[in-house]
Amino acid sequence: MFETAELGRKVDKATYAEELPKLRESLLEAQYELLERKRFALVILVNGVDGAGKGETVNLLSSWMDPRHVQSHASRDYSDEEKARPPLWRYWRDLPSKGKVGVFFGSWYTMPILRRAWGQIGDAELDQAMDELVRFERMLTREGVGVLKLWFHLSKKQQKKRFEELSADPSSSWRVTKQDWENHRNYDTFRPICERSLRRTSIAEAPWHLIEGADARYRSLTAGRLVHASMRARLDAPEEPAPFVTPVSESSREPGGKTLLETLDLSETVKKNHYDARLEELSGRLARLTRHKRFHKDHSVVAVFEGVDAAGKGGAIRRVTSALDARFYRVVPVAAPTDEERAQPYLWRFWRHVPPFGHLTIFDRSWYGRVLVERVEGFCRPADWQRAFREINDFEEQLRLHGTIVIKLWLHIDLDEQARRFDERASTGFKRHKITDEDWRNREKWPDYEVATHEMFERTSTELARWTLVPANDKRLARLKVLETFCERIAEAVER
Amino acid sequence: MFETAELGRKVDKATYAEELPKLRESLLEAQYELLERKRFALVILVNGVDGAGKGETVNLLSSWMDPRHVQSHASRDYSDEEKARPPLWRYWRDLPSKGKVGVFFGSWYTMPILRRAWGQIGDAELDQAMDELVRFERMLTREGVGVLKLWFHLSKKQQKKRFEELSADPSSSWRVTKQDWENHRNYDTFRPICERSLRRTSIAEAPWHLIEGADARYRSLTAGRLVHASMRARLDAPEEPAPFVTPVSESSREPGGKTLLETLDLSETVKKNHYDARLEELSGRLARLTRHKRFHKDHSVVAVFEGVDAAGKGGAIRRVTSALDARFYRVVPVAAPTDEERAQPYLWRFWRHVPPFGHLTIFDRSWYGRVLVERVEGFCRPADWQRAFREINDFEEQLRLHGTIVIKLWLHIDLDEQARRFDERASTGFKRHKITDEDWRNREKWPDYEVATHEMFERTSTELARWTLVPANDKRLARLKVLETFCERIAEAVER
Repeated sequence: MFETAELGRKVDKATYAEELPKLRESLLEAQYELLERKRFALVILVNGVDGAGKGETVNLLSSWMDPRHVQSHASRDYSDEEKARPPLWRYWRDLPSKGKVGVFFGSWYTMPILRRAWGQIGDAELDQAMDELVRFERMLTREGVGVLKLWFHLSKKQQKKRFEELSADPSSSWRVTKQDWENHRNYDTFRPICERSLRRTSIAEAPWHLIEGADARYRSLTAGRLVHASMRARLDAPEEPAPFVTPVSESSREPGGKTLLETLDLSETVKKNHYDARLEELSGRLARLTRHKRFHKDHSVVAVFEGVDAAGKGGAIRRVTSALDARFYRVVPVAAPTDEERAQPYLWRFWRHVPPFGHLTIFDRSWYGRVLVERVEGFCRPADWQRAFREINDFEEQLRLHGTIVIKLWLHIDLDEQARRFDERASTGFKRHKITDEDWRNREKWPDYEVATHEMFERTSTELARWTLVPANDKRLARLKVLETFCERIAEAVER
Repeated sequence: MFETAELGRKVDKATYAEELPKLRESLLEAQYELLERKRFALVILVNGVDGAGKGETVNLLSSWMDPRHVQSHASRDYSDEEKARPPLWRYWRDLPSKGKVGVFFGSWYTMPILRRAWGQIGDAELDQAMDELVRFERMLTREGVGVLKLWFHLSKKQQKKRFEELSADPSSSWRVTKQDWENHRNYDTFRPICERSLRRTSIAEAPWHLIEGADARYRSLTAGRLVHASMRARLDAPEEPAPFVTPVSESSREPGGKTLLETLDLSETVKKNHYDARLEELSGRLARLTRHKRFHKDHSVVAVFEGVDAAGKGGAIRRVTSALDARFYRVVPVAAPTDEERAQPYLWRFWRHVPPFGHLTIFDRSWYGRVLVERVEGFCRPADWQRAFREINDFEEQLRLHGTIVIKLWLHIDLDEQARRFDERASTGFKRHKITDEDWRNREKWPDYEVATHEMFERTSTELARWTLVPANDKRLARLKVLETFCERIAEAVER
């Protein structure tokens, strides 16, 4: 693979001087068009061998484009706020919004490759990490983020020459560190690992571009042209036709078909005095669990409350938060996205609230809106919600791998109970605002929601993050069940 | 002062049981009304003596209100991202948006009081810090953030009793730390410092409320009622009439009057070969300065580019950024605020981009919009832009005190040169989008802008953050002057 980038390709001074102004003008033109049309965001990953001109290229690109709409990001150490969250969090934070360009010096590839080279992980783990990144990038491209991946290469000999040159010049000698020489000695270890990584992650949506790094003019011109071509192609591409999707499974409506929700026994109730005692007991347990040393050190909670309208999510959430230390939780009510959120992939608005260790984030409605309301109301294309199942599983897996406890609750009531509660709300002072005509109309779509919910459970109730179905016709029963679930899941993690 | 909170006030169980449901319902009602009308954001500061029930009250408030629209914040240690920025940055980050409530456990008062008690600062520095906070809170209230300040008090005897009670019970003994006992021994040191701080910071817009902390029911009910009263009062207040303001100084238009800009010599030019040599020299110097160890450790840059349309801000910014490492700067073009920004005080959108040590943020237009375009176009009331001068000086002082170098540049061209550039842009391919009818119309307001600019220099060109006026009819001259200014200001800081 890398042999193709060891050919000694060069650009002479005259050609460079002639080509550069044209390239810069067309880069600027594409950039302004992107800014105006906001068709996508462009992420440029700058990776490769040390000494191959990565830093120089990042600087050049920023100076060729309008720096007001390009943001570069260093491959700095993780800050303590970043360390307390899954590794990809920092990239979600830094993701450019539509119309903008983000250049990542080093990237999500850096850590897995280093860890493999240091022997901390084996090939299987490396492959696993690479496949995760492929899915991540695929999701980004489908969500309107172009991903351009540049790999700057030098042969071992070229690298040595380059380091020696830099070291010899007092004005640049500081740029060659001990770590660089150390990496040079390990060149032959790195090479096959990098090849393996690139091979697995060069996908149609975001292939790697190898750039020979020895000649500065060649390398700069090539990188600039790739950036331009990538922007141009995305700007000029026709509206993508709706991708083929398999038809929605209607199995749950066929004779004998039953949805999971229909199997739920909604008749059970809990007596007041049992409720009071049990509520206190569970609250106490939850309070102790979330104050556990291990919870503060290695864990956090992301909880999702979903369910039919008026199922009592708000009340259940309050029973949970009452047991918590207010300084360590956050409840995020999911309403219409803000304009900053609309300029990003749909998961972005949830990633921004991922809690650090010791904290809990409770989502009142969540990313599951994609496969529920957006699906049923047709707010996104079938292909979009169909791919969301896998994307959501990936998101939750990242949380779990980091020690985050993922709790997903579906609060369920039947249509009669819902009607009763709507009427009740309409007549209660401060609850009046909670009920609108829209809510009544939504009831007509019940069968569609039932199919969507059934499929959601089927696809996203996983061994890492299973759904808990909560019968909620009886509010007391529901609240106890919610608290029990919180206690069980947190206990599994901290009382190992 | 504190004697009034040592009276042994109590609420008996029956009264509490009767009052609580009413209080909770009215709290919820006020909260939902706030959420709907988004008239303001409410910040509740919870401070006071250890053991006086601060934590319990924070939890109670969160459980009485709808937790989806209240966010509590711990008085945790500063994260490394926070340490790299001025102390108030963390509070700007956590500021609730309009319609929401934020509870700060400990607050911006904690550090100055502790530092005074530890003897790190004297009374003068304490007073200075308190006065800064007064101005900060005054600004918040005028920008639609209600500030409710609660101080929980215990006498020394009561505190001792409370600590002993907590320690005796195994389920709560962990809550009394060594530091708590240490602070108890220093009770008599803290008391006058706290009195001094409260006295100076109890202002009409945001007075302190002393709450006797010994009796839990009294304390909870009192705090809840204060929160309710504070929300209610702000919700019911009539639209404030426009405050009185002194008339705009027209001195610069009186006979013999001259604005600072008129004194600027725009005729000077720079020859191409001198320019090229000097540009290289200055770029090199800037590159070295921003890579200086001391810059990375203790400093950062906030630069502001303002100026008349077509003065060449973009081009000048590019000459600066070309010399910088792209990983350490960010250019923020200031356009219409996003909806998240509109729900916050006007300075919020600039605070969010305040750089950490070693980084530079360059604002293309800035908070000075408040006293320029917003003033001239009438986008805010005269009282708003008049108070902005002081608020801006305070903001920049906070930056400076933290080691941030504040560079403010005004690029200036005359009307003839502007017309020439407008015509030129209209005929140049990728610059066409930069020129609109609006731009031509703005020229008619030139005299108003001249007065506004003159006053802006008068009020905000301070010893901490002075303006540099850049004659920009000749682009080369302007760019050199901009680079020189960057070099000088950074050198002052790092080459001491």
